[in-house]
Amino acid sequence: MSVEEIFAKQKLLVLMGAKLDRVADGEVDISLDFRDDLGQQSGALHAGTVAAIADTACGLAALSLMPAGSGVVSVEFKLNLLAPAVGAHFVAKGRVVRAGKTLSVCTADVIADGERVVATMLGTMMRRAPTPTS
Amino acid sequence: MSVEEIFAKQKLLVLMGAKLDRVADGEVDISLDFRDDLGQQSGALHAGTVAAIADTACGLAALSLMPAGSGVVSVEFKLNLLAPAVGAHFVAKGRVVRAGKTLSVCTADVIADGERVVATMLGTMMRRAPTPTS
Amino acid sequence: MSVEEIFAKQKLLVLMGAKLDRVADGEVDISLDFRDDLGQQSGALHAGTVAAIADTACGLAALSLMPAGSGVVSVEFKLNLLAPAVGAHFVAKGRVVRAGKTLSVCTADVIADGERVVATMLGTMMRRAPTPTS
Amino acid sequence: MSVEEIFAKQKLLVLMGAKLDRVADGEVDISLDFRDDLGQQSGALHAGTVAAIADTACGLAALSLMPAGSGVVSVEFKLNLLAPAVGAHFVAKGRVVRAGKTLSVCTADVIADGERVVATMLGTMMRRAPTPTS
Repeated sequence: MSVEEIFAKQKLLVLMGAKLDRVADGEVDISLDFRDDLGQQSGALHAGTVAAIADTACGLAALSLMPAGSGVVSVEFKLNLLAPAVGAHFVAKGRVVRAGKTLSVCTADVIADGERVVATMLGTMMRRAPTPTS
Repeated sequence: MSVEEIFAKQKLLVLMGAKLDRVADGEVDISLDFRDDLGQQSGALHAGTVAAIADTACGLAALSLMPAGSGVVSVEFKLNLLAPAVGAHFVAKGRVVRAGKTLSVCTADVIADGERVVATMLGTMMRRAPTPTS
Repeated sequence: MSVEEIFAKQKLLVLMGAKLDRVADGEVDISLDFRDDLGQQSGALHAGTVAAIADTACGLAALSLMPAGSGVVSVEFKLNLLAPAVGAHFVAKGRVVRAGKTLSVCTADVIADGERVVATMLGTMMRRAPTPTS
Repeated sequence: MSVEEIFAKQKLLVLMGAKLDRVADGEVDISLDFRDDLGQQSGALHAGTVAAIADTACGLAALSLMPAGSGVVSVEFKLNLLAPAVGAHFVAKGRVVRAGKTLSVCTADVIADGERVVATMLGTMMRRAPTPTS
């Protein structure tokens, strides 16, 4: 499956209204408009929302460099929340730092309203060899 | 606000159908029933869903040990996905490892169907002194 | 090579005077006596010293559950410094949380003078299939 | 104390033969020549050596933007080992991603022989208000 096809199957991101903005080799941008039901007590996005778009951007960026037919799973990620995720529009920019045969290391910055980095992720993604379901 | 009141304001967790199961000193359990719209391409929970309940369990566990009126924000967390988050019912068990005056370090295990640890988090939470909105 | 043989080849740990205290299935303890030249500006152990013993305890704990002849490398780790690493004697207790075919997830607590947890690590270790040099 | 003075008090880095190469606002480079006694079983630098120079570069980069007289401690860091740390000369380039009043978030890339990034760190550093000892 292509990056676009895998993205369309991320049910949580559909629920959140996230969109796949851009796919290039080792680079995937995912965007999201603020919605009250994605937030926490103070009116910012919940860290889980931020993690969801950043993790998916990392995973798909890794997938974009893998052989056709590969699948991808997250091994682990770390997310630093740099500032309250306040704004109208958010973009998670996933980038591959190192693409290995099995493991890829990626970063994602989450940017609010095109100007403020509100979170940054460093994570490890793992290739799944082609199977009928991935 | 109490742990229960802060939990009720986590809009994302309301959207996900999560419940506050248990609150004790330094310990908070949050549960979630599987729903297809919280998943990813292979029918497991999306890592963002897992992160959302684990992060909230960590934050509220930290809050449970803070002076009355405090608020809490996540500084950062790391999540290891140990196995596909497949199951009918999930519990995130947040525990305080060290409670400091400003920073608290917490872990959360996410357990599927009462028997398998599918993810583990290690994170840092920060106290916010009392304000009118927190 | 055995856990003991791999430990003996960790030149940095020899330089630091670290000792392999205990090896069991999925559990490795490594200890260290305080030395001024392993410290930082305030008289505590440097975070690099703490990371060195915790990472090695994690890696060898993972190795202890792998097929004979395997090697192990660290993919990544996160270390939370919970308190100043002040004391005379330190033990890093590496434990396997989940042993996979390729990747193992481990934790390590670093304990000062048998009573205070001064740091905790969560990390991912990778198996290397047998080769002449590992 | 200045960044240079704090660096000189990092006993572990003196033991390792590390040097403070460059200090600018929010940027600190620390270098190290390969030595066999800083290594592990396969002839690369031990992850603890890599962590030591990366963590110190992060901490001092954070310190470079703090008010005079401040001290700095590491709250936590995550280190991804991207490739075996093989080479003759290593530089850890610490950079501040976000400088807060209390917490600063930093990254450090560790580069071998001026051309290969062998590790990357994302960490959180905390300001200590001026005291007689820091």
